[in-house]
Amino acid sequence: MNGKQLRTLAGAFALAFNATIARADEGMWLYNQLPTKILHDRHGFDLTDAWREHLQESSVKFGTGGSAEFVSEEGLILSNHHVGSRALQRVSTAEHNYLRDGFLARTRAEEIPCPGIETRVLVGMEDVTDRVNAGVKSGSSDAESSRARRAAIAAIEKESLAQTGLRSEVVTLYQGAQYHLYRYRRYTDIRLVFAPEEQIAFYGGDPDNFEYPRFDLDICVFRAYENGKPARVKHWLKWNPAGPKDGELVFVSGHPGRTDRLRTVAELEFLRDVEYPGTLARLKRSEVLLTSFSARSGENARRARNDLFGVRNSRKVRDGALAGLQDPQLMAAKRAAEEELRTAVAARADLADVGEAWDRMARAQKEIAGLNRDYEMLERAYGFNSVLYTYATQLLRASRSRTEPEGERLEEYRESARASLELQILSENPVYADLETIKLGDSLGWLVETYGADDALVKGVLAGKSPRERAAELVQGTRLATASARKQIYQGGAAALDAAADPMIELARLVDPPARKARHEIDARREAIRQAHAKIGRARYALYGASEAPDATGTLRLSFGTVSGYQEDGHAVPAQTTFAGLYERAASQDQRPPFDLPPRWIERKRKVDLKVPFNFVSTADIIGGNSGSPTVNRQGEFVGIIFDGNLQSLTGDFLYTDNQCRALSVSSAGILEALRHVYQARNLVEELTKR
Amino acid sequence: MNGKQLRTLAGAFALAFNATIARADEGMWLYNQLPTKILHDRHGFDLTDAWREHLQESSVKFGTGGSAEFVSEEGLILSNHHVGSRALQRVSTAEHNYLRDGFLARTRAEEIPCPGIETRVLVGMEDVTDRVNAGVKSGSSDAESSRARRAAIAAIEKESLAQTGLRSEVVTLYQGAQYHLYRYRRYTDIRLVFAPEEQIAFYGGDPDNFEYPRFDLDICVFRAYENGKPARVKHWLKWNPAGPKDGELVFVSGHPGRTDRLRTVAELEFLRDVEYPGTLARLKRSEVLLTSFSARSGENARRARNDLFGVRNSRKVRDGALAGLQDPQLMAAKRAAEEELRTAVAARADLADVGEAWDRMARAQKEIAGLNRDYEMLERAYGFNSVLYTYATQLLRASRSRTEPEGERLEEYRESARASLELQILSENPVYADLETIKLGDSLGWLVETYGADDALVKGVLAGKSPRERAAELVQGTRLATASARKQIYQGGAAALDAAADPMIELARLVDPPARKARHEIDARREAIRQAHAKIGRARYALYGASEAPDATGTLRLSFGTVSGYQEDGHAVPAQTTFAGLYERAASQDQRPPFDLPPRWIERKRKVDLKVPFNFVSTADIIGGNSGSPTVNRQGEFVGIIFDGNLQSLTGDFLYTDNQCRALSVSSAGILEALRHVYQARNLVEELTKR
Repeated sequence: MNGKQLRTLAGAFALAFNATIARADEGMWLYNQLPTKILHDRHGFDLTDAWREHLQESSVKFGTGGSAEFVSEEGLILSNHHVGSRALQRVSTAEHNYLRDGFLARTRAEEIPCPGIETRVLVGMEDVTDRVNAGVKSGSSDAESSRARRAAIAAIEKESLAQTGLRSEVVTLYQGAQYHLYRYRRYTDIRLVFAPEEQIAFYGGDPDNFEYPRFDLDICVFRAYENGKPARVKHWLKWNPAGPKDGELVFVSGHPGRTDRLRTVAELEFLRDVEYPGTLARLKRSEVLLTSFSARSGENARRARNDLFGVRNSRKVRDGALAGLQDPQLMAAKRAAEEELRTAVAARADLADVGEAWDRMARAQKEIAGLNRDYEMLERAYGFNSVLYTYATQLLRASRSRTEPEGERLEEYRESARASLELQILSENPVYADLETIKLGDSLGWLVETYGADDALVKGVLAGKSPRERAAELVQGTRLATASARKQIYQGGAAALDAAADPMIELARLVDPPARKARHEIDARREAIRQAHAKIGRARYALYGASEAPDATGTLRLSFGTVSGYQEDGHAVPAQTTFAGLYERAASQDQRPPFDLPPRWIERKRKVDLKVPFNFVSTADIIGGNSGSPTVNRQGEFVGIIFDGNLQSLTGDFLYTDNQCRALSVSSAGILEALRHVYQARNLVEELTKR
Repeated sequence: MNGKQLRTLAGAFALAFNATIARADEGMWLYNQLPTKILHDRHGFDLTDAWREHLQESSVKFGTGGSAEFVSEEGLILSNHHVGSRALQRVSTAEHNYLRDGFLARTRAEEIPCPGIETRVLVGMEDVTDRVNAGVKSGSSDAESSRARRAAIAAIEKESLAQTGLRSEVVTLYQGAQYHLYRYRRYTDIRLVFAPEEQIAFYGGDPDNFEYPRFDLDICVFRAYENGKPARVKHWLKWNPAGPKDGELVFVSGHPGRTDRLRTVAELEFLRDVEYPGTLARLKRSEVLLTSFSARSGENARRARNDLFGVRNSRKVRDGALAGLQDPQLMAAKRAAEEELRTAVAARADLADVGEAWDRMARAQKEIAGLNRDYEMLERAYGFNSVLYTYATQLLRASRSRTEPEGERLEEYRESARASLELQILSENPVYADLETIKLGDSLGWLVETYGADDALVKGVLAGKSPRERAAELVQGTRLATASARKQIYQGGAAALDAAADPMIELARLVDPPARKARHEIDARREAIRQAHAKIGRARYALYGASEAPDATGTLRLSFGTVSGYQEDGHAVPAQTTFAGLYERAASQDQRPPFDLPPRWIERKRKVDLKVPFNFVSTADIIGGNSGSPTVNRQGEFVGIIFDGNLQSLTGDFLYTDNQCRALSVSSAGILEALRHVYQARNLVEELTKR
């Protein structure tokens, strides 16, 4: 939301709105288009070039989806435990489970190399919009324009790499209104220095996920090496040992993955009225099924653990997002902003062709709502919830796609996706017949509920059996549970497929035509929506330019906000938690998992200063991908590390307010206290606090 | 299903049907209309009058909703722990929690009086149909006929009491085609003799509820006293120390509460397509909400425990029932049976007016489907899930009903229901603001999903807030959490209601008109269905007479079946479990609750013969209310006590098959082994095994 809109809204909705909405510190800003004026006017902060450069080059992109930061001259990199967890798992052995039990290198020699992790630092940005668009001829089709842009981008990237030796990427911003060339310095020799126990890194487990107050030491320390030696870095964040104060202005520098803040009202209404309620009903149904299965035995719980964690996590995310969409004030604000934008667009002769984009989108969205049932039940296979059915469909479609021209194939069956497809089909992941039977049986029951028992497809699917009996028959009858059987059919093609006479494949064959039809119909509408979005996005940029931040794209951004608590259900939630709170929570839960403490946290309690802050919240605008981002103060000092958002922040994909949405950080003070007194990591503390 | 139908079905569906369906031992038979021929023809059992009398008078109705049996000459009564739990709770003290920890009276003097429990034994039955109908004049309205019958029934009951001194009740059977006078001997001085720990009585807790195999010692022993001395009873069941064998014929004698086996296809389709899917979505939504709330702290778990147990139990019941309704074979059988009955009715001139009853019912059922949303969301208040809202509605309606003539009031606000209403309104049950807020918030969210955010009522309800914010505001703003505040408003009537200016009452006031409208509209259709049912029921009796058992009515019935395992998901489930199985289950679950064993079960394991049977299943036809019923063998000996049905039996309300539906009993052998070696209840064992 830009200043002009805000003023209008403030006028129109002065009575209805909480004043805080209008002052929202929204925005994941580009480092080359920073909101210096807003920071000056609203927070009295004057952002200098040196400050920017220092924070930018201290910020690290960790792997494909996380953030991190340099915190010492000798290349120490701090990130989250959950960002480093894949690396921790990989370096663990039969003897040492570093993911679960933690790790501390007492000397440099003990630091463990983590192959396969790439980290990068953004060192240069350049607006190349004109060059990217130069090859686009007026009057050319969408496909031709797209081809011309792709060619220009490839040339720019190649040239930059040759000139600088730096990894170079052209980033699409503002829905294609802007193209910027980003250059990165890379570090590929990354070694593990410290990790706490998973138990304290993810303290409170699933029940506390996305909640606040929290008590998580969600950190992991690595070191970048160059030529076999610790990398000497010019920019790294100085450690503030006290952590931030309540009300203090803070900045978050990281790599938010994706937002869709420009979603239209029609899209949000679809999410609110159709997609989220449907998805939540499905997730809650699954959660009850899996929880109930898990409760019957420890082995059941082990088998369903991954499914259940995924379902609970998704459910919380959707529940939080839907709660935001159901807030009449937020939707009214969205509606007013859209109205204002349409009015502004209508007033500009050069944007005359943009107006219809909203109507086109609303039409397509309405059609999608009508197609959604078939698409979800059949094509996304919510009515056939078993990995065995997924395998059957993949084998069937892979075989058929071989006879189709590349361009007509479904995306995931094109040559370019073959490696990924084969990885899935030939996966050695165990398949548990009991778990597959209850999942498939339950989803077949849902199919009956959705289409009615007299529907022809339903009758064909059930073949005269009850959903549960049919599921048991299919799971027991199929040979697709073993990778070798799948491999044989995959390699044998259509003939092997027919010869298999596998009941699950026959089921997939029955469902494939209507599933494919639903897919094609919904894909066409989505393409229409994409095009309408590009049009609106470009119009928006023509009107407002860089006065508003572009949607997140996984690239480096700067957010800002204040450390502040909030009101929830009429109670005040304080901004910061302390070690005392952690120990109280563990005690009040009788140390039962996931609220139990690692032994050394119990043993060393008396060494710890219980008043020291542990976690805190701020109004900074973050999203998935920001995990591991540094939170810094006006001086650019490290005061915390982002590790989560609260439940109310789960609307962040498409809506931001600073009313209740909060970004969660582990406090720099808390990290230091734990490293000193719980882990006695003397060398590490010394390096982190060196100034 | 009667023999004639069965033969026809066997012809028409020979290919589609599992042969076992056609041999189903269906029926909760009247003791004065026992299926002697079926038992002779199918099981080679000749039921004698003496056998009947002995079992009938050994059978006990326990309290208002349970079953039990005499098991010694000196008045020992055996029932389930869960049937006796209310009594156990009442006699528990601050020092002794008998419900949780169990109890054993070592001497008669230690037996604990349990005031307020009534037990009865059915000692006489008489067909009084003609006398009940004698006063009904031909051509009189439904209301007039009903009045005449009620007057006749009252006279018959009064006369019988005067003549015999026995409690006398006229029971309506076959939807009003038959009226029987029942006479009971009563025992009101009931004392507690033995109860095991709740942990073993309900071993496996919620996860194992309705499941099989099971390992529950769900028993409780009382003694009837007369004139301060143990009652000497003529009829009591001899204890069979070995329990039943696989395949053995067994009988269950008890008080099944209610079945609706005569539900029409239109009604079952409504349940399958509308009511159960909707109810299950609501229950699963609640279950996730409450589970997630409970996981956050021990105190949360304590607050939500009752709600959560109720929700899980209801969810399992509905899930099981829906699974049955989704079985195409069962529905086809129901459809065929209905078709046959309609054909038979059409062929009889004297039943010419009955045919339209099915159409009337189907029409009414369709209308109910259309009205169901408003009825459930508004009148049943699923959109306002908080006891505080319930209180608000009750206060509002109670006040209004005072100005209405008795006949126009909603049923629960009539003079006859006043005591019960006041008990609810003035309840001292604690109200937890946090729990009420999340429940109300979630259900308001569901209201938005159901009606859409732009609905006028929804907008009025939310008052511009998000569902969660509105819920918090309502819960914090209302004074209805305390009984004293409710009492004041209740007694103060309309004036106090207005003066209270309570936001929850104002919300109830807003919702009341559409809620009441939905109620009236659905009540009218239900009355039409009731009348159509009575018509069909009487026609059915005219055609088939007592060759089929009437629906359960909470009165004494005899069921029969065989001890037999079943197939589930292609695996064989054996008929009986053993002590070895119990100890294995506890060990494989690492003794974690609810699979942990009471200390004495662990200590005395080596004393126990692990091969002894513990629980078993039979095909006997049971339903809620049968809990505590004796299972007896051909000799009329006690071989087990009913305590549950399996998941597949949950269709029992409207469908019975012996394919997978099973009744669960604790084996007489298992009870004896536990009493002897775990509880060392020497005197009790001696009394039970005396012959």
